[in-house]
Amino acid sequence: MIIEPVKPHTTTPGVLKVSAKSNPNSVAGALAAVLRERDSAELQAVGAGAINQAVKAVAIARAYLRPSNFELVCVPAFIDVEISGNERTGISLAVYRREVAE
Amino acid sequence: MIIEPVKPHTTTPGVLKVSAKSNPNSVAGALAAVLRERDSAELQAVGAGAINQAVKAVAIARAYLRPSNFELVCVPAFIDVEISGNERTGISLAVYRREVAE
Repeated sequence: MIIEPVKPHTTTPGVLKVSAKSNPNSVAGALAAVLRERDSAELQAVGAGAINQAVKAVAIARAYLRPSNFELVCVPAFIDVEISGNERTGISLAVYRREVAE
Repeated sequence: MIIEPVKPHTTTPGVLKVSAKSNPNSVAGALAAVLRERDSAELQAVGAGAINQAVKAVAIARAYLRPSNFELVCVPAFIDVEISGNERTGISLAVYRREVAE
């Protein structure tokens, strides 16, 4: 008997998938919205173009959250992502907010 | 009288310039070497290919520094870089080490 692993039906909250075509300002807006509510978020990107947009989004989101006295730090890690049935290596950027003194 | 700004003759210590052709493992090795000696380092990259290699280097350097109980976090920012006389926008990744409990 083969037991299939349980696959989640919904995307984990706070996970934003970024593509090479994503607008970094839009991703930054979404990221800032998540980080106003939660301590952390995650950007997932596969490929140089997507990773570039993800990093730019974090740089922009820092400016969005500065008036709320939040600084952002991120921790990159490799992840395996399934795209159209193929396993590909991507990058996860775990993004954490830190409260800063005024 | 025009007073020329003083230009540093050497690269700032701890700043590593990453190109699209950089080997992420090599950059990670250099980054880990800096972060064994200092609390922080900086990666500078211009263009999607270079930024991709820089982010991968940080992900790899995390593994290199884990046995020393250091975790890495990075803070991306936009920077203006002069390349062949042209001003281009790049990304600076400030990388900080954090001591973690065993």
